[in-house]
Amino acid sequence: MPRYDGVSRSVIKRLPRYYRFLGELLHKDVTRISSRELAQLMQLTASQIRQDLNCFGGFGQQGYGYNVAALHREIGNILGLENATPIILVGAGNLGRTLARHMKFEYDGFRLIGIFDSDPALVGQGVRGLSISGMENLADFCEEKKPRAAILCIPRESAQKTVELLIQNGIRCFWNFTHFDINLSFEDVIVENVHLGDSLMTLCYHINAADGESVSGA
Amino acid sequence: MPRYDGVSRSVIKRLPRYYRFLGELLHKDVTRISSRELAQLMQLTASQIRQDLNCFGGFGQQGYGYNVAALHREIGNILGLENATPIILVGAGNLGRTLARHMKFEYDGFRLIGIFDSDPALVGQGVRGLSISGMENLADFCEEKKPRAAILCIPRESAQKTVELLIQNGIRCFWNFTHFDINLSFEDVIVENVHLGDSLMTLCYHINAADGESVSGA
Repeated sequence: MPRYDGVSRSVIKRLPRYYRFLGELLHKDVTRISSRELAQLMQLTASQIRQDLNCFGGFGQQGYGYNVAALHREIGNILGLENATPIILVGAGNLGRTLARHMKFEYDGFRLIGIFDSDPALVGQGVRGLSISGMENLADFCEEKKPRAAILCIPRESAQKTVELLIQNGIRCFWNFTHFDINLSFEDVIVENVHLGDSLMTLCYHINAADGESVSGA
Repeated sequence: MPRYDGVSRSVIKRLPRYYRFLGELLHKDVTRISSRELAQLMQLTASQIRQDLNCFGGFGQQGYGYNVAALHREIGNILGLENATPIILVGAGNLGRTLARHMKFEYDGFRLIGIFDSDPALVGQGVRGLSISGMENLADFCEEKKPRAAILCIPRESAQKTVELLIQNGIRCFWNFTHFDINLSFEDVIVENVHLGDSLMTLCYHINAADGESVSGA
């Protein structure tokens, strides 16, 4: 894949959203869009959009706008979605199983190739066409199938030990649902955290802040 | 609750993480911590921490550090966690039911008081001590119980109509798992989005960018 040096984290964070919006436009058979129209749709400014996309060489043509299909494809390439990176799920409790069933991994650039859990009661159960394996099979599996990444849906208490085991088996990329900050304990890891509780507390703050405003504004 | 004007979104985004780390320190019976130690633990700088907490009046004492219990309680107050804001879940499919079971709502400032779904096959089923209700009961329920917020776990296609209905019934705050950008269609709403697909694509980008680096660095 092409490399883009020095692109800021916040631009990268916006790319999936561009990808989603462009995918919806494609779905509605929109073939061309100006940065002004796209900006309006996404509640950004046109200059923000031009700046963002210029980080990757820019795709627009003055007075013509963006070719929706080409831009969608190109952002997909930048994100590396076509690589279908092999990923495993570790922790097949309620949340893990739901993610396995719910996520469109192929659309988001991954291929779910294995599910692991330490609970013997879960081993052998089928989820999304895969059979849950015991943790004792992890090493052989990684040796053979070379997964690049792991989804972590395990209790906080076992997180450190599990991440150590995964790193020993060549996995350094994590989609982390555990309340354990992996990059504070391990170096050279790639982590994308989903702290659902933090998100809910942020909502709580904004609701209560709004209440405060309407009281004091009365 | 007290009001804090002009506090930036990024500071607010960090508050739940402070709250989590301080909760863990409390759990380990740590009673006092310097901004330097807290910074090391959270991989922030000490001056960042002092700056963040100064937005709310500051809680530290020169040469003494922070009182962990007091700071934890105070951040909880700022977040409004003690209000136990009443929230309902709309959409009791796999993801919705899992969230209902998985989340520690009380810890994160909410009280789950109702679950709704349009699928007659789900109505009447019990989840976390609540019985799933049909959407036709929503209006009466809101009239009586006054929920402030809704968790949205519904298909994208029905999102616009469902949000309209919720707003008609006095709910303007959303924890949104749907690929529908609520604040692009409705004004005066408070939305916290969890776009799991965007998060997974971001991970995909970083994995592939790292691969690109090791290739070009070889």
